[in-house]
Amino acid sequence: MGNKTWKTGISDVSPGRIRIRGYDIAEIMEKLTYAEVVYLVLRGELPSKAEAELMNAILVSTVDHGPLPPSVLATRSVISGGNSLNAAIAGGVLVIGDSHGGAIEQSAKIMQEWAKKGGEVSAIAADLVEWLKETGKRMPGFGHTLHQVDPRTAKLFDIAERHGYSGKHIELCRAIEKALEEKLDKKLPINVNGAVGAVISDMGFDWRLGKGLFVISRVPGLLAHAYEEMIREKPLRKLGPMPFAYDGPGDRNI
Amino acid sequence: MGNKTWKTGISDVSPGRIRIRGYDIAEIMEKLTYAEVVYLVLRGELPSKAEAELMNAILVSTVDHGPLPPSVLATRSVISGGNSLNAAIAGGVLVIGDSHGGAIEQSAKIMQEWAKKGGEVSAIAADLVEWLKETGKRMPGFGHTLHQVDPRTAKLFDIAERHGYSGKHIELCRAIEKALEEKLDKKLPINVNGAVGAVISDMGFDWRLGKGLFVISRVPGLLAHAYEEMIREKPLRKLGPMPFAYDGPGDRNI
Amino acid sequence: MGNKTWKTGISDVSPGRIRIRGYDIAEIMEKLTYAEVVYLVLRGELPSKAEAELMNAILVSTVDHGPLPPSVLATRSVISGGNSLNAAIAGGVLVIGDSHGGAIEQSAKIMQEWAKKGGEVSAIAADLVEWLKETGKRMPGFGHTLHQVDPRTAKLFDIAERHGYSGKHIELCRAIEKALEEKLDKKLPINVNGAVGAVISDMGFDWRLGKGLFVISRVPGLLAHAYEEMIREKPLRKLGPMPFAYDGPGDRNI
Amino acid sequence: MGNKTWKTGISDVSPGRIRIRGYDIAEIMEKLTYAEVVYLVLRGELPSKAEAELMNAILVSTVDHGPLPPSVLATRSVISGGNSLNAAIAGGVLVIGDSHGGAIEQSAKIMQEWAKKGGEVSAIAADLVEWLKETGKRMPGFGHTLHQVDPRTAKLFDIAERHGYSGKHIELCRAIEKALEEKLDKKLPINVNGAVGAVISDMGFDWRLGKGLFVISRVPGLLAHAYEEMIREKPLRKLGPMPFAYDGPGDRNI
Repeated sequence: MGNKTWKTGISDVSPGRIRIRGYDIAEIMEKLTYAEVVYLVLRGELPSKAEAELMNAILVSTVDHGPLPPSVLATRSVISGGNSLNAAIAGGVLVIGDSHGGAIEQSAKIMQEWAKKGGEVSAIAADLVEWLKETGKRMPGFGHTLHQVDPRTAKLFDIAERHGYSGKHIELCRAIEKALEEKLDKKLPINVNGAVGAVISDMGFDWRLGKGLFVISRVPGLLAHAYEEMIREKPLRKLGPMPFAYDGPGDRNI
Repeated sequence: MGNKTWKTGISDVSPGRIRIRGYDIAEIMEKLTYAEVVYLVLRGELPSKAEAELMNAILVSTVDHGPLPPSVLATRSVISGGNSLNAAIAGGVLVIGDSHGGAIEQSAKIMQEWAKKGGEVSAIAADLVEWLKETGKRMPGFGHTLHQVDPRTAKLFDIAERHGYSGKHIELCRAIEKALEEKLDKKLPINVNGAVGAVISDMGFDWRLGKGLFVISRVPGLLAHAYEEMIREKPLRKLGPMPFAYDGPGDRNI
Repeated sequence: MGNKTWKTGISDVSPGRIRIRGYDIAEIMEKLTYAEVVYLVLRGELPSKAEAELMNAILVSTVDHGPLPPSVLATRSVISGGNSLNAAIAGGVLVIGDSHGGAIEQSAKIMQEWAKKGGEVSAIAADLVEWLKETGKRMPGFGHTLHQVDPRTAKLFDIAERHGYSGKHIELCRAIEKALEEKLDKKLPINVNGAVGAVISDMGFDWRLGKGLFVISRVPGLLAHAYEEMIREKPLRKLGPMPFAYDGPGDRNI
Repeated sequence: MGNKTWKTGISDVSPGRIRIRGYDIAEIMEKLTYAEVVYLVLRGELPSKAEAELMNAILVSTVDHGPLPPSVLATRSVISGGNSLNAAIAGGVLVIGDSHGGAIEQSAKIMQEWAKKGGEVSAIAADLVEWLKETGKRMPGFGHTLHQVDPRTAKLFDIAERHGYSGKHIELCRAIEKALEEKLDKKLPINVNGAVGAVISDMGFDWRLGKGLFVISRVPGLLAHAYEEMIREKPLRKLGPMPFAYDGPGDRNI
């Protein structure tokens, strides 16, 4: 029953004073990007320039993916039933699980475990694919039901390369893609989840945070869908993935 | 029963192609900050430079506020019961409501309605405070149980001013603060919720998105608490706000 | 900051002893039906025989309504995303809102307010329908998109009548149905929500508990759907209301 | 993409007609207890007399346990933040997890797996405890932080015995209690979770439904706490388990 003092190292708040991992809130409101603050609040330290850009790209990469994912269906259902925007976001976040966004942490876990083994990355990848074959497992983070080539993967790896940031996990990730093609004779390109799994592993993230990063990234998309449902649709309409049409802006560039 | 086509204008996804409000995902992963993408996904257009900085500052401003808010208690309870990080975030998001973060949209609603009235801002503020007195209502977004002066308010308004962005709602917000002091003889400084309410009103946001912006901002903080609970605490410990101690980094600057 | 003692009157627990509203848990496990315990835990007192039967009938009446309601869609989405049964139930419960199950409390609120007015019930109903016409409001709890005559309404009222339990709210409910037909020339039969709203009003329930009773009633149905999704379907299947087919047992009697 | 017909066997709904697992809703509203309907909706068949009483006792046994469990803390936090009763229930349901109510399914899983082994129940129990010792595992469903002897266990087993319903799992459960004492020299009495785990295993439930049954049972308790928080407390009060006082009715009998 002891009312023992417990400890927290995230933020320090007292009258007139808010410090996030030691940094003054007013200072970071001005000097840091939100992506850097996300990194800070989760990791306890500021990211390097490369890490900041990668974090930003990761958060942007999965901000939305249209109305088909089941998380969007749940979010829109909560609004359709006549509830608040925060409940709608919570409903969508509940759907993000082992089968939806879960490949980030699953692939990161495997890559972190296998990257520790000694020897050439290509040999590790070959052993890993052999193990997948023997155990009848699928490699999470590879292949996509919709995208033959996931446009987000190349961009993430480009940014890492440009900063000379590619480490053993990105290397291993690419070697796995090659080994899957050679050993299984299947083209299973790295999808965004596998790419994020590799990048955050090189950044030193605990793989268990993979799903959480996806949740952070997707929440604005869920809010956009909840709000659109609220202002464009009637309550209790028949909700389902099809048929729908996109009626937003056409292709444009920055 | 009609399976009528419904419309969505948020993102357009087809094989090998993801467009957010018209912009290619790979392009915005590199060229936009996450705060700009949050703005884009919610508003449909790119923010100006001033709006991008304000959006960033808003998202940073409420990323965390220590372990006392009830949303953190719920988030930690979900982990303590033996559940996943996404469920923990959902649990915390459910708590963000009319009494917790709700002052953003409540103050934005009032300021948007009263700002439409003609005449001097100071006269509008005087009338508003009179109306509050008569109806016995409190003005949401003013005063704070902990912070006499909320350090986030000044910084937000500074950024707006530096860009020459202060519009009628920020003006009105300041005039309300002054009128509250004069008419009620109470010092009720603008807190972060009131400041965000004013800034997003000048940015043209529907007030109904206020709580949603707070949810986006706070999710990384909730994840940090969920993860800390998971790695530092035993399941089913006695959870409650007190007593706890901060044991993170001391004060530091960027 | 005062750690003031707060009060709760629901249950009293100490080593080897659990009392629900004063009653010993072991005694009520044997002597009370679960419906009676639901009544007890919410109201603080044991129900009469009539109230016990009505409570039972209310909980049974909305235990499930097939896979189309948006709450079921959200529940199945949570499983489909790869999450736990409790998260799936929570996802469904989040959808139960003003437009889904909300008519119970909305109709109870109106009936409780209008029943207080003096005079004949038929006159109150006439005035109420007049007010609805003038304000352009719909009467919640009347009419159903699917059921012309809701089979649950008659049964609930039968049970009440058999026990001589029909009070002013059930009377008013029936008078409203008649007045709607006469004044609006529309057949809007009392649906299960309106019937439950009337019965719980006669039972003395705060109308604000209406949605909560519906949640209790529906949770087993949501669990059944979550479990069926888990054991019969693959993760991340296209989820939507149609088309589906019922393949359970054919019609049978007790 | 195929819009393939999917199947559900829970309920069959068409205009004017609702059948739950084949039974007419109006008939079961009158002839079945809610506990029997919970069994029906989950299992697809009517319970025997013994099963109906056991189901009722199980649902009653965990309807509430005071304000200390973390699920109640989350439920009250959701109300305290200014949200709806359904969101509050969802918040509490999210907390029910591996460490809170999870011992039902964990113990049922172990008992179902070990009960399949041949030989005397006492020998199986001895082997099981040996295995626990070797692997350093705890047996879920035994021991309680508060109750030395859980008053709910004896009552559940009494009801089973009275009906001659005790099967291999209840026997095994008791043998494990004895073996734990003999081999580990620890008094770890069967708690309600272990007892429910044994009883539902004898009833033929999939162990994976254990947590779901606990959720059904506890939802009325969560609603009672949410409602009490709503009507007795101010928003955003300091929430925490202590100190509180019970101020409900004193001990009383039916």
